[in-house]
Amino acid sequence: MRPSSPAALEVLAYLRDLHDRITAAIEALDTVRFRRDAWERPEGGGGESRVLSEGSTFERAGVSVSHVFGDRLPPSASAARPAVAGAPFEAMGLSLVFHPRNPYAPTTHCNVRFLVATPQDGDAEWWFGGGFDLTPYYPFEEDVLHWHRTAKAACEPFGAGLYDQYKSWCDRYFFLPHRDETRGVGGLFFDDLNSGGFERCFALLRSVGDHFLPAYLPIVERRRATPYGEREREFQLYRRGRYVEFNLVYDRGTLFGLQSRGRAESILMSLPPRVRWEYDWSPAPGTPEARLYEEFLRPRDFLAELDRG
Amino acid sequence: MRPSSPAALEVLAYLRDLHDRITAAIEALDTVRFRRDAWERPEGGGGESRVLSEGSTFERAGVSVSHVFGDRLPPSASAARPAVAGAPFEAMGLSLVFHPRNPYAPTTHCNVRFLVATPQDGDAEWWFGGGFDLTPYYPFEEDVLHWHRTAKAACEPFGAGLYDQYKSWCDRYFFLPHRDETRGVGGLFFDDLNSGGFERCFALLRSVGDHFLPAYLPIVERRRATPYGEREREFQLYRRGRYVEFNLVYDRGTLFGLQSRGRAESILMSLPPRVRWEYDWSPAPGTPEARLYEEFLRPRDFLAELDRG
Repeated sequence: MRPSSPAALEVLAYLRDLHDRITAAIEALDTVRFRRDAWERPEGGGGESRVLSEGSTFERAGVSVSHVFGDRLPPSASAARPAVAGAPFEAMGLSLVFHPRNPYAPTTHCNVRFLVATPQDGDAEWWFGGGFDLTPYYPFEEDVLHWHRTAKAACEPFGAGLYDQYKSWCDRYFFLPHRDETRGVGGLFFDDLNSGGFERCFALLRSVGDHFLPAYLPIVERRRATPYGEREREFQLYRRGRYVEFNLVYDRGTLFGLQSRGRAESILMSLPPRVRWEYDWSPAPGTPEARLYEEFLRPRDFLAELDRG
Repeated sequence: MRPSSPAALEVLAYLRDLHDRITAAIEALDTVRFRRDAWERPEGGGGESRVLSEGSTFERAGVSVSHVFGDRLPPSASAARPAVAGAPFEAMGLSLVFHPRNPYAPTTHCNVRFLVATPQDGDAEWWFGGGFDLTPYYPFEEDVLHWHRTAKAACEPFGAGLYDQYKSWCDRYFFLPHRDETRGVGGLFFDDLNSGGFERCFALLRSVGDHFLPAYLPIVERRRATPYGEREREFQLYRRGRYVEFNLVYDRGTLFGLQSRGRAESILMSLPPRVRWEYDWSPAPGTPEARLYEEFLRPRDFLAELDRG
C-alpha cells in the first residue's frame, strides 16, 4: 500500500463521511440496522460494505466504500487515457443500491469515485466519476420531477448545460439494448472528469454525492407505505430481472469487479433479493404497467415535459 | 437466405427430430404443454422456441432450434479459425434449459450446434459443438453416477479418452471464477469439432444429442415427487442465482446472442423463473446444503470416485 496524496486523503475523508450520512439516513427509515463488513484486498487496500437485509422499508440496501491500490490500471478504466494504460493506480469510491420492499417506491443507485494513475516514467493523472439514477416500477410524475430537479440543482453551480450533458450520458449508459429500454428514468452519469482543476472537480463530486439523499429520501418516504397487492409485487419482481440483466451483462463496474476477482459479495450486493423472469411477457395496453414502458423507459427531457407548475 | 448444403440440411433434419422427441418426453412428465413460438431473424433465418411455464414437474422448460445466416462470423465464434473470421456463415443448433419445480430434481442444459463459414476467396469450413451438463441442488450419488455413465456411453464409440477430454472441458467451461465453484456436476462440452470427417463428427453430435434424454429423464422421474419444504425451496432459489450469474456474465452463447441483437426472449428463456440473492450467505457445516459445496461443486472424477458397484 503506497502513501496517498493529501488530495486523495481529502476525497477519502469525504467518502467516509458520506458513507456515514447515508447509512444513518437509511437506518432512520427502517427497523433493521446495517451489517458492517470491513474487508481487505490481497493486492492492496480494502473497504467497508454495509448491507441491510429484510428491513421494513428496504428489502435490501447496500452501500460500500472502497479504497484500493493496483499495479496495473485495467483497460476498462483507461480507454480515455492511453498515457496511463497499465500504470500503477489508486482508486476509491462509494457505491450504493437500495431495493425498497414497496413496489411503489423506486430502486436507486449512486456512485462517486476518484482515480489516480502514476506511470513509472510520466506524470500522474487523476479523474472523478459518478452519478445517480432512479428505477421506478410504478412511477409518479412528481417523483420523477423532484429527482431531476435535484439532479439539476447538483450540477447548476458548475456550468450551464452540465445537467443536460450528464443526464444524456446517464440515459446512454443505463440502457439495455437487448430490451430497447432504459433501466429507469435516469439521473446523472459522468466519467473522466478533470477539467477546471482538482478543487472544482472535487466540489462537483461532493455536490453530486450531497444531493443524493435530498433527491431520494422524499420519494421513498412518500411511497414506502402505499398499499399494494400481489399484482404490484409480481410486477416489481419481474422488473427487477431487468436490473439483474443490466448489472451482470453491461455494467462496467460489476464486470470489472468480478473479472478482477474483487470481493464477489460486495460487488453483487447490488442484486435484488428476489427476482423473477417470465417468458415473453408484456403488459396489457392501458394498464399502469404498460404506462411504465410507454412513458418512462426511454430517454425523455422530463424537466421540460413534466414541469407544468 | 442462401441455399444450405445437403449436409447442413441433414443436420437440420436431425435437430428438428430431436426437438420433437425432447418436447414429447418432457410433456409426458408434465400437466402443462409447451407454447411454440416460431420467429424470423431480419438478417436471415429463424427458429422455433418451445417454452413450458408453471408446470407440475417443470417450473420452466425451454427448448429452441434455430437456423440462422449471417454476413460476418462474429469474433467469438472464430477465435479458433482465423481463416474464416468475418466470413458469411450459417449456424444451426438446439439449445435447452429445464428448471424443475422440486429442489431435489436438478436443473439441466443441453446444446448441439453446427456451423459453416464460407469466405469469399477461400474454402468453406464447418464444425460441430455441443454437450450437456447437470446442476443439482441436493445431489444424489446415484444420479451423478448415472449422468456421467450416460455421458461416457455417448462418447465411447468415438475413441478412448474422449469422455475424459469433454468432461474436463465441461468442468472448465461451466465454472464461476468469482465464486470459485463449478456450475454443477458437469457432463460434456466440446467445440470446434471437425476431425475425422463430416460423417464421424455428425455421428458424434447425434450420439450426444440422443443420450441427453436417457441421461436426464430417469433422474427427474426419480426426484420430481420427493417431499420438500421451505428450506429446500429457499436453497433452490438461492442456488438458481448462480445459474443467472453464469449465464449473464460468462456464457458465450448468451452474450453473443444479446450483443448481436438476437431474440432476447429466446436467449433468456434459460433463466430460472424465480431466483433470490442473499448477502454473504453460506451453509452451516454438516448440512445437506454444505455437502453440495464441499463434495460436488468442484471438478471431480465422479465415475472413478463414486463407482463402487
